[in-house]
Amino acid sequence: MAARGEYAKGRARREQILGEAVGLFAEAGYRAASLRDLAARCGLTHAGLLHHVGSKEALLLAVLEQRDVEDAALVGPDVPPPGEQQLAALLDVVRRNTSRRGVVELFCVLSAEATSPDHPAHAFFDQRYRRVVAALTGAFADAGHPAAASAARRLVAVMDGLQVQWLLHPDDVDMVEEVRSQVEQELAGVGVLRTTSGTESL
Amino acid sequence: MAARGEYAKGRARREQILGEAVGLFAEAGYRAASLRDLAARCGLTHAGLLHHVGSKEALLLAVLEQRDVEDAALVGPDVPPPGEQQLAALLDVVRRNTSRRGVVELFCVLSAEATSPDHPAHAFFDQRYRRVVAALTGAFADAGHPAAASAARRLVAVMDGLQVQWLLHPDDVDMVEEVRSQVEQELAGVGVLRTTSGTESL
Repeated sequence: MAARGEYAKGRARREQILGEAVGLFAEAGYRAASLRDLAARCGLTHAGLLHHVGSKEALLLAVLEQRDVEDAALVGPDVPPPGEQQLAALLDVVRRNTSRRGVVELFCVLSAEATSPDHPAHAFFDQRYRRVVAALTGAFADAGHPAAASAARRLVAVMDGLQVQWLLHPDDVDMVEEVRSQVEQELAGVGVLRTTSGTESL
Repeated sequence: MAARGEYAKGRARREQILGEAVGLFAEAGYRAASLRDLAARCGLTHAGLLHHVGSKEALLLAVLEQRDVEDAALVGPDVPPPGEQQLAALLDVVRRNTSRRGVVELFCVLSAEATSPDHPAHAFFDQRYRRVVAALTGAFADAGHPAAASAARRLVAVMDGLQVQWLLHPDDVDMVEEVRSQVEQELAGVGVLRTTSGTESL
């Protein structure tokens, strides 16, 4: 029982650290963020923090992977065809984002920083973008879009770019409605919205 | 003549500093960038660099404003209506971006960092996004788009989001063609492409 108590305590501590790390990386960016600041936020010593997270780089990857597990609809094959349903599932991810500004800030700053080949999250974002674009290309192709790869790239770009505008002007930008408009326009262009009922739910 | 020579020398030095600053801010982000590193790149002492730029914050704003002067088509009222011509002028900005990776990196990282209200470029990006969205809303409205503000927001988002994808996968992403597709699809949706000849040049 003592061991299980220790395990639960370690797990709670880890969750606390990941939560604080999201905030710190989002505010400062990965490069400027300091583990000493993070330790102070968590009420830990620097050595105590390192014991839990291993390294700054390992911490970063843990934070990024945690979010992708939560958003399997965006990056995983969790939503089956038809494509219209897969695209509609994206709106849930976008809706969730509107209630977690810190996570959106984090991904905005890190995805930009990580375009540098020497950034520790470079491989993560390299693979993540390939996976997301491939998944959405499949969804648009399944929905009959004749230029599915282009539609997918532009949809991913719209979602990313809207985040910057929303972070700057949260009251002016309705991310969910704009992403919905983008998807509807793509599908209307190929006649899908006029010929099936499956996209009514968009 | 001596004074004019000094002036030209100061101006050349300033251009050198701004050029190196673009690279450094793009690689490290504003917060992690160090003026000492920048001074070393420019062959100056730290004090010598401060003499030229005033402060790190003033340097950042000078870098940002220089790019917007170059890209007046994007953020200024330099291109007159009709709206289709204004939208086509954007493609030139995007095309120019494909030959200046450093500037694209800089804007990607800084626009994300600067969503924090305490970032020194926050006011710059706040106003820049309002101006760009307003200008493109005007262009789409002039072209007869019934939801011009939404089309403008999504076009700005596509341009921003494509930059991240292009920085990660430059060989896979054709930013000019994707932005062209986005504009064409918006205008096709309202019948503009079928009823005027002005957009042939898109």
